[in-house]
Amino acid sequence: MGITMSSQLAELRLKPRSDRRIKAGHLWIYSNEVDTDATPLKNFENGQQVNVTNSGGKSLGVAYVNPANLICARIVTRNSKHELNKSLIVHRLKVALSLRERLFEQPSYRLIYGESDGLPGLIVDRFQDVVCVQIATAGMELVKDQVVEALLKVLSPRAIVMKNDTGARDAEGLNKYVEVVHGEIGDEVELIENGVKFIAPILSGQKTGWFFDHRPARARLQQLSKGKRVLDVFSYIGGWGIQAAVAGASEVVCVDSSEKALDWVEKNAELNGVADKVGTLQGNAAEALQALLAEGEKFDIVIVDPPAFIKRKKDAAKGEKAYAKINQLAIRLLEKDGILFSASCSMHLPVDKLTDVVRGAARHIDRQSQLLERFGQGCDHPIHPSIPETEYIKTVMARILPAD
Amino acid sequence: MGITMSSQLAELRLKPRSDRRIKAGHLWIYSNEVDTDATPLKNFENGQQVNVTNSGGKSLGVAYVNPANLICARIVTRNSKHELNKSLIVHRLKVALSLRERLFEQPSYRLIYGESDGLPGLIVDRFQDVVCVQIATAGMELVKDQVVEALLKVLSPRAIVMKNDTGARDAEGLNKYVEVVHGEIGDEVELIENGVKFIAPILSGQKTGWFFDHRPARARLQQLSKGKRVLDVFSYIGGWGIQAAVAGASEVVCVDSSEKALDWVEKNAELNGVADKVGTLQGNAAEALQALLAEGEKFDIVIVDPPAFIKRKKDAAKGEKAYAKINQLAIRLLEKDGILFSASCSMHLPVDKLTDVVRGAARHIDRQSQLLERFGQGCDHPIHPSIPETEYIKTVMARILPAD
Repeated sequence: MGITMSSQLAELRLKPRSDRRIKAGHLWIYSNEVDTDATPLKNFENGQQVNVTNSGGKSLGVAYVNPANLICARIVTRNSKHELNKSLIVHRLKVALSLRERLFEQPSYRLIYGESDGLPGLIVDRFQDVVCVQIATAGMELVKDQVVEALLKVLSPRAIVMKNDTGARDAEGLNKYVEVVHGEIGDEVELIENGVKFIAPILSGQKTGWFFDHRPARARLQQLSKGKRVLDVFSYIGGWGIQAAVAGASEVVCVDSSEKALDWVEKNAELNGVADKVGTLQGNAAEALQALLAEGEKFDIVIVDPPAFIKRKKDAAKGEKAYAKINQLAIRLLEKDGILFSASCSMHLPVDKLTDVVRGAARHIDRQSQLLERFGQGCDHPIHPSIPETEYIKTVMARILPAD
Repeated sequence: MGITMSSQLAELRLKPRSDRRIKAGHLWIYSNEVDTDATPLKNFENGQQVNVTNSGGKSLGVAYVNPANLICARIVTRNSKHELNKSLIVHRLKVALSLRERLFEQPSYRLIYGESDGLPGLIVDRFQDVVCVQIATAGMELVKDQVVEALLKVLSPRAIVMKNDTGARDAEGLNKYVEVVHGEIGDEVELIENGVKFIAPILSGQKTGWFFDHRPARARLQQLSKGKRVLDVFSYIGGWGIQAAVAGASEVVCVDSSEKALDWVEKNAELNGVADKVGTLQGNAAEALQALLAEGEKFDIVIVDPPAFIKRKKDAAKGEKAYAKINQLAIRLLEKDGILFSASCSMHLPVDKLTDVVRGAARHIDRQSQLLERFGQGCDHPIHPSIPETEYIKTVMARILPAD
């Protein structure tokens, strides 16, 4: 790694005892933890790298600063001899890659998951020989070119897309853009998840075009799908439903409000030779489920994977009601002995609450549930044990039975 | 199912509002919830079946009573036309079996997990054509013969063992015994878990002779083991270690305090043709790990699966220290980029606490961790969503790296 003495970096000094969380493993510094008499935040540029010190002046590592944000600095290395540059990024990429190569047969995965992989503000999803990057912070945006150079060095991808259009960029004072920064690529990218081939809209789709985070739950779905009738609610481009179909489901219905997403479901069904048993239903999820109920439809397995109903903590009560409503509808559509996959990506809905939503939704219509398994995000989204915010996805797999 | 009008059963009446937890799905009635003026607990026999009613006299279902226990009744059916007899047990066995047959290729699993499978106080583990039963309550003991008849009807097993020697029986006023109640069998029983064959001591071993609850975590261990050096601490008869060896580990060391358990490790290594790469080390776990450290040994994967260090809630602080100590030792024995499987079967250690134990143990020796995946008990130990006590096992799989 290139050596830069941290002494060359400006100092960001913490107040007494504000180093304890950092020592315990956390990477974020809040603005009220800075000794602003010694090192005023207004003296720093947006994204500037600094030497973080405790109140005694001892270095805790190198961070980049955003003076206007509540999270005013994020540590990028605990070794004050380093800084965030191409060689550190190459090192981090290699450490991350060695884990993914050990875990997955195919190079389709989240390669960098921000803080958890030691690169705060950076997401890298890998789709075989194409890479999609999302930058969320000013500090990472400043080293964007080094990120690209490092990716070229470590992965030699055919194309690199910057999908820099996330809401988080507003708070960092960054503009939004989508750009192919290396190679040439259209909207369509290939990936393989749990042995099933997909195409996804890397430029026009949600987030990076694909959600790798549900891989473990979808693997379990495959094991249960043979000969079953499956309903995939909030299907997006068919991540759950197509895997069920390929694994032998007798019929799959994908529900989504986006006509465009359902076009991709159909493309993915074609791609896997299961178009004859995959149907789509466009519309608002609750209304579509009500319509299926009215027609007397029943399914052996229902997957409910909604967008975050709870975006902010203060929306929790309202959001929980929305989760309860959609889970009740899903359970009504289940056969007498059915399986529900109920997912939530709301960070503010802990798994115990989601479990209780499922329990309550079943009891509400006098049915009982067995909680069979709970899934988090896959291993390519490691949780940083000091940063609870790095954990967000949960899926409850429950068996729903008559109450007898 | 045989019909018995609940009117033939004595009434157990609840106090006003004490039916709410039951309506929400719970199966236990605490003695302070009973209207003992209307239905004094001392009027009931130990294990007697009763018609549970709310304060208005409306039936909530059928339960069996233990007048001396804090949990003075457990509901066995919400249908007051039924009772706990052979036909209800046959029905419950069939419902439980249909789930397991859908989930597992081999008939080696927990078939009945007490309350979660609608049969409070009953555990049934299935080892191919042999069945091991554990009865924990007086109400279930009273229908022991019907349990055996139902098992014969549904499974036609070669042998049935009653392993009625658990501590829970003391509180229920039951004696302890181990008895082969059907067929003939010695101490050795066969099972297949995650594709690996084992033999286990069904009569002389711990619990039913085997712990099926770690199946999902052990499946993941297999995926990571190829070419790796693996340490299995508190190995018992080799559930983790032998699976790692069969999956291609270069070397496995099993540590246990019981010479007898390690004899079974060796038998299981022989059985799978991996005796040449499975070693055993008898002794106290902490001392054995210290000895390995002193010899400079390093492993790619370490599994720590201790007995419950926290048996009662008041032991939590002391127990957490014990978990921290053994996890620190385990992490010291890991290579620079290693994987730790840290398990706990203490109901009083929530998974977040165990995660924090791993985080703290790593930071304690200036290393960082990535939390890759967390496992609960397998699907053959379903959690009853209203009864938190049915959830007890958790495993944290973490990658341990240098702090840089």
